[in-house]
Amino acid sequence: MTIADRWLLPDGVEDILPPKAEQIETLRSKLLDLYKSWGYDQVMPPMMEYLESLLTGAGHELDTQTFKVTDQLNGRMMGIRADITPQVARIDAHSLAREGVSRFCYAGQVLHTNPAHTMDTRNPIQLGAEVYGHAGIASDFEVISLVLESLKLSKIESITLDLGHVGVFRSLMEKAALDSDQEKALFDILRRKALPELESFIPEHFKNQSLGEAVRQLAYVCGGAEILNNVRELVAPLSADAVEAVDTLKQLVGRLQCCYPKVNLYIDFSELRGYNYHTGVVFAAYKTGGSQPLASGGRYDETGKVFGRARPATGFSLNLLKVADVSSQSIDQQKLVLVPDEDSEELAKAVEQLRTQGHRVVRQLTDSDAEICDAVLSQVDGQWTVVDR
Amino acid sequence: MTIADRWLLPDGVEDILPPKAEQIETLRSKLLDLYKSWGYDQVMPPMMEYLESLLTGAGHELDTQTFKVTDQLNGRMMGIRADITPQVARIDAHSLAREGVSRFCYAGQVLHTNPAHTMDTRNPIQLGAEVYGHAGIASDFEVISLVLESLKLSKIESITLDLGHVGVFRSLMEKAALDSDQEKALFDILRRKALPELESFIPEHFKNQSLGEAVRQLAYVCGGAEILNNVRELVAPLSADAVEAVDTLKQLVGRLQCCYPKVNLYIDFSELRGYNYHTGVVFAAYKTGGSQPLASGGRYDETGKVFGRARPATGFSLNLLKVADVSSQSIDQQKLVLVPDEDSEELAKAVEQLRTQGHRVVRQLTDSDAEICDAVLSQVDGQWTVVDR
Repeated sequence: MTIADRWLLPDGVEDILPPKAEQIETLRSKLLDLYKSWGYDQVMPPMMEYLESLLTGAGHELDTQTFKVTDQLNGRMMGIRADITPQVARIDAHSLAREGVSRFCYAGQVLHTNPAHTMDTRNPIQLGAEVYGHAGIASDFEVISLVLESLKLSKIESITLDLGHVGVFRSLMEKAALDSDQEKALFDILRRKALPELESFIPEHFKNQSLGEAVRQLAYVCGGAEILNNVRELVAPLSADAVEAVDTLKQLVGRLQCCYPKVNLYIDFSELRGYNYHTGVVFAAYKTGGSQPLASGGRYDETGKVFGRARPATGFSLNLLKVADVSSQSIDQQKLVLVPDEDSEELAKAVEQLRTQGHRVVRQLTDSDAEICDAVLSQVDGQWTVVDR
Repeated sequence: MTIADRWLLPDGVEDILPPKAEQIETLRSKLLDLYKSWGYDQVMPPMMEYLESLLTGAGHELDTQTFKVTDQLNGRMMGIRADITPQVARIDAHSLAREGVSRFCYAGQVLHTNPAHTMDTRNPIQLGAEVYGHAGIASDFEVISLVLESLKLSKIESITLDLGHVGVFRSLMEKAALDSDQEKALFDILRRKALPELESFIPEHFKNQSLGEAVRQLAYVCGGAEILNNVRELVAPLSADAVEAVDTLKQLVGRLQCCYPKVNLYIDFSELRGYNYHTGVVFAAYKTGGSQPLASGGRYDETGKVFGRARPATGFSLNLLKVADVSSQSIDQQKLVLVPDEDSEELAKAVEQLRTQGHRVVRQLTDSDAEICDAVLSQVDGQWTVVDR
C-alpha cells in the first residue's frame, strides 16, 4: 500500500473543499429557510433503513443504485439510501400520520452504487419538498413555484422548465392493451428518444392504427405552451382521460405563465422519467442550455400505499451540488482578523464583538499566521483596534 | 411482508421529526457559523472512501464500526464513514496541503455497525473542528475553548470538562517495558476502571516496584485541579517526560480556570479513550451529571503520517444529537399565516413581505388548512392584512 493509494478517492467521490464547501453550506441553509417560510416542516430520515422500506413504492427503480449492508444486530438486509423521497412517504404514512395537508422538506446526503451519468458524483446532496394530502393542481403549482424560487434564490438567471403529464400516455396505453413487456419496451424507446425504433415498433404492436399514430405523433410534438391545443386535438377522439390530463397541464401552464413570465416552458409528453411511480404532472428544471436537470419531481399519489396510507402527493428533489455549480451566488468572504494569543478580559470582549459583527477572528499561533490575515487587532492608545495590513 | 414490517426502522436508527429536526438544523447552522467566526474553514469529505483511507492512522479502532461495501466500478472495498476525523487528516495531508496553521471544521452524518452504547443511535451527526500545524498548548486551549463555546451556544448551562494527558501513562509504560499484550491488558483494565484486577496485575507484571506503585496510584488519583501537584510529585522521581506532560496540563488548566471559571474541571490521567492515536492532552465535555460525553477530542500529532504528511494536530468532535437532547435552546416557532390560493400581484407582494419578515406563509389548499394556522391574510378595506384567528 503506497501513500498515493491511501490518498486516492473512488471515482465519483470527492472532497468538497473551501471555499466551495462554504458556498454549498450557505445555499443549503438559505433553501431550507425558504422552505420553512413556505410552511414546510423539516424532517431528517436516517441514512440507512431495511431494504423493504427503502425500495418499496417509489423506490423500485432504485434497487441497483442502492448499497446493501447486513444489520449485524439481526442479519437483515439494510440499504444506504439512494433517494430520500421514499423515506418521506414512509414518514407521512406512518411516523407522522397527520390529518389534512402535510408539507415536508429535507436536506441530506445519498449514495449511489454507480454514477447516474458519466462524471456524476456518487454522493449527491439532495434537498426537496413534498406536499401530502392534496390532489389538485394548486399543490402541483405550489411545488413547482418552490423549485423556481429555489433557483432564483441560488442566483440562476435563466431557467427552463420541462413539463409533462404521464396521464396522457398512460391513458393511451390502457386503450392499446399492450402487455407489460411491450409497454416497458415502448417506454424505453421513448426515454431514449429513439425515433427510428419507434417507427418500426408502432405498426408492429398497435392493432388500433389511430392509437398508434397518436403515440407516434406525441413523441414528436414538443415545444412551447402552444402545442397543448394540438395535443388535445390529437387525443380527443381516443381518450377522455388523456384530454383531462392535457387540460390539467394547460391550467397549470396558465398559472406559471402568469406568475413566472420569465421562465421558459417546454412541454414534452414523452418525457417519462419516473413513469413507474408518477401519476400526474411531471417536471424538471434546467439552467437554460444545460443538459442535466437541477431539480425534478411530479405527482405520485400512490407512494404511501405500501406503508398503509395512500394519499395524494406531489413534490420535487433538487441536486444541491449541481445547483451550486451553476449558481452565480458569491460568498462574501469576511475579513480575517489576527489577534494575539493572550487572555485578558478587554481583548476577549473586543474579539467577541468582532465575531458578532461577522468578522472571522483567529488567534495568532505562529509567526506565519500573519501572512494569511487581512487585519490585525492591536492596542492603539490603550484601545484594541483593527488595523488593516 | 406486512405493512408493519415496512414501517419498522432498524434498532438504533430513527427519523428525526418536527420540531426536533428544526432544532437540530438550527444548532448545526449556529455551530458552523461559530467555527467560521473563529477562522475555521468548512470541509465536506465524502460519505464513503476506500477502506485504506478510512481506517488508517486514527481510524484503526473504527474497523468493526464501519460498514463495508464493494465498489462496483472496480471491485475494491469501500467503507461508509464511521468517523470524519481521519478524513480531515487526509485533507490536511493531501487534498489541501497548506503551509502554516490550518483550521478546519465539518458537519455530517456517520454510520456505525453497532451502537457505541446501549440505546445510542447508529446514525449520529458529527460536528467538529481541527487545528493542524501547531504543537503548543495554545492550540489545545483554542479547541477546548471552542468546545466550551459550542456548549454555551447550545444553551447547556453546567458543563464538566474531563482532562487528561496520555503522555503521563505513556512515559511510565516506556520505563516499565511491558510487552504489547501486557500493555493492552493494562489499558483495558484502566479503561474499565477495574481496580481489583489492577491490584493483582501490577505486582505480577511490574519488575520496578516504584513504577508499579506509581501506575497503581495514578488509577486512583482523580479530581479537581489540586491533584496535579500530587501527580507531579508521584511521577517526578520516575520520568522527566511524565513531569513535562503534567506541567503542560497544569498550564492549560490555569488558562481554562482564568477564562472559563464556571466550568467544572475534572482531571483523570487514567481516562485513556483514544490512547492508541492520541499523543498529548485529551478531553471530554459533559453536561454536569451526564454519563456520556457531548464532545471529546485531544492531540493526535501522528494522524497525517500515513498520508505522507505528519503534522501536529489537535481537535474535537461533537455529537449533535446528544447536544440537542440536553440543549435548553427553544425554537421560536414563527406564526403560520394562511393565504388564499390566488394569483394577484398585490397578494404575491404581501406574501413575500411576510416571509421576509420571518413568518411562515402557507397557501390554502383545503378547508381544513385553516385549523392549523395562527392567522389569515385577508383583504380589509382593500388592503391585504394579517388577521389573527
